[in-house]
Amino acid sequence: MSNERVIYLPLGGAGEIGMNAYVYGYGKPGKERLILIDLGVTFPDMDGSPGVDLILPDIAWLKERRNQLEAIFITHAHEDHVGALAHFWGDLGAPVYARAFTANIARRKMDEHGHPDKAVTTVLPWPETVDAGPFSVGFVPISHSIPESSGLVIDTPKGRLVHTGDFKIDHTPVVGEPFDEAVWQDLASPGVLALMCDSTNVFSPVQGRSENTLAPEIEKLVAGSKGMFVATTFASNVARLKTLAEAGQAAGRSVCLLGRAMRRMVEAAVETGVLTGFPRTISPEDVKSLPRENVMLIVTGSQGERRAASAQLSNGKYQGITLKEGDTFLFSSKTIPGNERGVGRIMNNFSEMGVDVVEDYDGLYHVSGHANRPDLSAMHKLIQPQMVVPMHGEHRHLREHIKLSKSNRLKGVLAPNGTMVDLSANTPSVVDYVDTGRTYLDGSSKIGAMDGIVRDRIRMALNGHVMINIILDENDDPLGEPWCEIRGLAEMGNSRAPLVDVLEEDLSQFLGRAGNKTLVDDDKLEDGLRKIARQSTQTEIGKKPEVTVVISRLST
Amino acid sequence: MSNERVIYLPLGGAGEIGMNAYVYGYGKPGKERLILIDLGVTFPDMDGSPGVDLILPDIAWLKERRNQLEAIFITHAHEDHVGALAHFWGDLGAPVYARAFTANIARRKMDEHGHPDKAVTTVLPWPETVDAGPFSVGFVPISHSIPESSGLVIDTPKGRLVHTGDFKIDHTPVVGEPFDEAVWQDLASPGVLALMCDSTNVFSPVQGRSENTLAPEIEKLVAGSKGMFVATTFASNVARLKTLAEAGQAAGRSVCLLGRAMRRMVEAAVETGVLTGFPRTISPEDVKSLPRENVMLIVTGSQGERRAASAQLSNGKYQGITLKEGDTFLFSSKTIPGNERGVGRIMNNFSEMGVDVVEDYDGLYHVSGHANRPDLSAMHKLIQPQMVVPMHGEHRHLREHIKLSKSNRLKGVLAPNGTMVDLSANTPSVVDYVDTGRTYLDGSSKIGAMDGIVRDRIRMALNGHVMINIILDENDDPLGEPWCEIRGLAEMGNSRAPLVDVLEEDLSQFLGRAGNKTLVDDDKLEDGLRKIARQSTQTEIGKKPEVTVVISRLST
Repeated sequence: MSNERVIYLPLGGAGEIGMNAYVYGYGKPGKERLILIDLGVTFPDMDGSPGVDLILPDIAWLKERRNQLEAIFITHAHEDHVGALAHFWGDLGAPVYARAFTANIARRKMDEHGHPDKAVTTVLPWPETVDAGPFSVGFVPISHSIPESSGLVIDTPKGRLVHTGDFKIDHTPVVGEPFDEAVWQDLASPGVLALMCDSTNVFSPVQGRSENTLAPEIEKLVAGSKGMFVATTFASNVARLKTLAEAGQAAGRSVCLLGRAMRRMVEAAVETGVLTGFPRTISPEDVKSLPRENVMLIVTGSQGERRAASAQLSNGKYQGITLKEGDTFLFSSKTIPGNERGVGRIMNNFSEMGVDVVEDYDGLYHVSGHANRPDLSAMHKLIQPQMVVPMHGEHRHLREHIKLSKSNRLKGVLAPNGTMVDLSANTPSVVDYVDTGRTYLDGSSKIGAMDGIVRDRIRMALNGHVMINIILDENDDPLGEPWCEIRGLAEMGNSRAPLVDVLEEDLSQFLGRAGNKTLVDDDKLEDGLRKIARQSTQTEIGKKPEVTVVISRLST
Repeated sequence: MSNERVIYLPLGGAGEIGMNAYVYGYGKPGKERLILIDLGVTFPDMDGSPGVDLILPDIAWLKERRNQLEAIFITHAHEDHVGALAHFWGDLGAPVYARAFTANIARRKMDEHGHPDKAVTTVLPWPETVDAGPFSVGFVPISHSIPESSGLVIDTPKGRLVHTGDFKIDHTPVVGEPFDEAVWQDLASPGVLALMCDSTNVFSPVQGRSENTLAPEIEKLVAGSKGMFVATTFASNVARLKTLAEAGQAAGRSVCLLGRAMRRMVEAAVETGVLTGFPRTISPEDVKSLPRENVMLIVTGSQGERRAASAQLSNGKYQGITLKEGDTFLFSSKTIPGNERGVGRIMNNFSEMGVDVVEDYDGLYHVSGHANRPDLSAMHKLIQPQMVVPMHGEHRHLREHIKLSKSNRLKGVLAPNGTMVDLSANTPSVVDYVDTGRTYLDGSSKIGAMDGIVRDRIRMALNGHVMINIILDENDDPLGEPWCEIRGLAEMGNSRAPLVDVLEEDLSQFLGRAGNKTLVDDDKLEDGLRKIARQSTQTEIGKKPEVTVVISRLST
């Protein structure tokens, strides 16, 4: 038993905000029994992943070891923690454990992918625990921006681990359990080997604020508005939805939820008993028969998502509802870096319609769901672990969290995605590096981020595309002229002739010069044609395009 | 003379932050003599303009009226005010006026495009003026984030206009003239018809801070750092460069400027006498022979630009210099919305190298160059115009600035790009709408933003590209099988066969079924092939690709 060990291996989330997937193992090296905490997604963007639908962690390492996997635990129902579950469950097949609200959301996803409902087991919170091989895992209620978030207590034969999941310290979270220091202190009292701790807000210097500080300001804003009042926030922030809806109700407005994700979240929260006393909602149909000042819409799309309700309202109409001069639109949210342009577009559209947009400049209408720097320190002090392992953050967040740990006189272990750490060694040590990365869900295919497929799309977007088509006869002589098509390139060049004409002329001359050695060899011919096409395009319009050459030989 | 009028027409900048270009005119409707204030660019992004080099305003309206154009005035040397000058000067040909530093930068650009130096005239500041047709224009020194920025006093036969250009109210700007209330009050005393006023920071609620508040904090930071110290900011912020360099000098560090834009700006500032007492700089070669703690680099690339010095340093090496653990990298800048991802990438790269990155979380190391809301109100009160015309901002900034004007009991005129306003009417009135838009510099071509060329590139990036090639013989019968190439699409589909094989099979079947009516008609044939290719790709991999069909007919 002496060489058994406890390992920690992030496959996602320790190198980005999003895409969480953390493996723990216990056993002899290479023979560990494994559990997986969370299996989330992150979102594509035009810069790095145009056309991609979702980004999933590359879990090849885990798939190869599916027979070692005892269970999957989901800390909470945010997409970056549960979004990849149904996409990968077929490859892993292990039982899934989550608390009621999270399980409800997880089962909806499993259903959509045709996986069995019963793969997901609903668990009660700590002090209840689930046994999974050598592990015993308990779900400790922790405050965040979605109901029933949990930190996990993971007991191993070598000691106790604490995995915070995403969290903040909120004693009045509006919906769900308040943060309870006594519980955390108590569970830490036997001693904790390692604290795996959320890092997203490590750069935020001041103590976080409670969800319940927002209600008075939101109420004031709604009460002072004249036309229709519309608010957007994350669909999963059920506490915020409640605060918003209650502010509407207090101002004599009927509440209508717009956007599938939002209705689904409220449904799940009501079904699981997490949400009670939510104001009665009306349908989009009903909205039209009410005076504008008696309506409040709560809508999806706080991040500027193109297909969500807020974007569609800003483009004119959604479900028959149109905003107009005198209406107010509140972003009860923070724009995630990278989404500024999309959100800005919506704001400007509303501005053109005469709708007053209220953004959260001063934090009056939004609070973060993550622990700020002082709150992280408070967690360090509550748990007093032998080491802190920062998780969920970009490299700079993890590194800063290590610094914070040191300033709190705790050992810190920097373990980005793919770093396998032996948590049971006297000094925490990296024992292996595992290949990790990103898998793109692209249409219905899963493709590797490094496969070159998306790289080719990016290149076409940057450089345009020239297609060359030539036909060679039985004697390997060109039959007619080469034929060019261009896509995404200026049609006229410096010589004031159509680019395709210039290309066809230059390629034709090349073919005239080419010897038989070139003409019989597809590779040589293709290289030559590509080179000419790139040079000529560069001369004509100053761009080096992507080139596809198709050679048809009548002889074959 | 009674129906002569003063018109204002923004061609760029009143609908975006960037790309400033404002036309003023005086005369009978349609016969106005014109002047142009500023001619700037804005920058492309992967979302909307992949592969584009620069975005210029569409000045077709002005080109058609070049014989009415008296002069071009440049308020300051930022790219979004002067960057398009040399690209369009050949189309406009009017004399260009600017103060010494701005003129120096403008001439460098004119040189690069082969335009004559003497097209640019250096002018002295107010109370000197330049006559341009019916206009008399004076350059009033105003504080901003680049030397010798000017607001313009534009006298017309119908009264005085004030065009602020970009500005802030800074009484201690480190380099250049402090903001001088007395001058503005004095020039406004005869009465001002209209104030055209910067809107970029209208949403910033607190009074702006002076450039000189930064020195103590920056000095403290540099003095407390151990390894090499590197700072980045906008190359054109000469005051900031001076503050940074002096902080380096005070800490016993030799200063090295990295990046062409930065050296060029300092050169221009020294040449024109704007900058004096800048610490002696050393070359990148010299850096290598000095102890790290005796070096300060000031580098380009504060916005994460891929080719700038900061990005290259974060990727490993630049001009033989490599950063390492213990070095400090300061962003003395604010990340412009949309650039967060690029900047984040650099920060994470540095984090992986062990370099401490200092970002400007609390405004200790950066101040904005634009007037905040209270400062805009101060300007309104100084000038007391008959109307405020908000300029330089997105629609929402302009609209908010109108609201601010009203709260200051001033008439506001909302005039986005293309809106021609008669400033001399008793009530300001919109007299025309002019087509405006964006021109893309794409390689060496200028293409219209709506030409479809960039749209095609975006579509290839989102959807991938299928190329189909068929040959028909003299009898319009297919010769061999159709040939497919794919780019940017998954290679294997749901049927576990290569996508190209499935496509070729399906297209072949289509050709087999196709009647002679289809085979003889290129359009029909192309439509049919495209439809099949899209359907099959959708079935196989869940994507609807762009399709290019090339039909070769041996008969022709």
